[in-house]
Amino acid sequence: MRHIINLEVENSAGVMARIVGLFSARGFNIESIVAGKAEADDIARITLVVIGDDWVIEQVSKQLNKLIDVIRVTDVTREDFVNRELLLVKIHCPPVKRTEASLVGNIFGAKVVDISVKSLTFELTGSESKIIAFLQTLRPFGIKEIERTGPIAMVRDFNPRSSE
Amino acid sequence: MRHIINLEVENSAGVMARIVGLFSARGFNIESIVAGKAEADDIARITLVVIGDDWVIEQVSKQLNKLIDVIRVTDVTREDFVNRELLLVKIHCPPVKRTEASLVGNIFGAKVVDISVKSLTFELTGSESKIIAFLQTLRPFGIKEIERTGPIAMVRDFNPRSSE
Repeated sequence: MRHIINLEVENSAGVMARIVGLFSARGFNIESIVAGKAEADDIARITLVVIGDDWVIEQVSKQLNKLIDVIRVTDVTREDFVNRELLLVKIHCPPVKRTEASLVGNIFGAKVVDISVKSLTFELTGSESKIIAFLQTLRPFGIKEIERTGPIAMVRDFNPRSSE
Repeated sequence: MRHIINLEVENSAGVMARIVGLFSARGFNIESIVAGKAEADDIARITLVVIGDDWVIEQVSKQLNKLIDVIRVTDVTREDFVNRELLLVKIHCPPVKRTEASLVGNIFGAKVVDISVKSLTFELTGSESKIIAFLQTLRPFGIKEIERTGPIAMVRDFNPRSSE
């Protein structure tokens, strides 16, 4: 199963290296890493996507909790969560293909962020399955370049069982 | 200066660890890392934001080029580029504050992705300065949680000097 793990860590020089090293040393399969600043400058947030069964994820969480820089480890996938990733994709698109490409973009709610006589660049935000579906739909145009973040995720406050 | 560096690497087990290790060993200041799958499964893309003058960036690029897993290093900041990051932010927002919060969201083109009796969660895509301005505008509501990717960037095809 695909688990999204949120980490809150102290923003020290070697913290990323220690966390990533921990994974590679144990052969855990990381699908994506997103690391950036949080609310305060001395705190960094890291979102890891790890493939593995419950036992693997438990081991990963335990190991992460042992690192002194790590403030909090949350397996978001155990909760009800919002999950988004960001895609920039440049496709081959001569002027005669623009209408067709725009239509595909509109269907997915993508924005055109760059245009030239040869290409069109879209920006799209969504879940992994939406991103994949969009890329598959664009494939016949010819994909020139993809830049893509891994997912970030946030636990929902709304709980249908506890609300009126 | 803030440089955005795009890396194309072979998706082997230890590649992330080697790249991150290279930076921390030399004390280079990484502001964010985004690493994920590319078009093909055996290729990964990494976007690094590194703070430093031209000399530092040149050293970083040289060191990266020496790693055998690294296929290509591009300092996007030297070109005309599109640059986007993704933010999820949860604010304190009782029902009486919803109109005010929605207005701020609309001004920035943010989407509401979750709502509860106590909070509102926005999704926003944009440049770093837009993300920072949005967060500053939301501060008076009280920020509960931030999840944020670093930037991804893509060189523009459109070149005003060469086009008609």
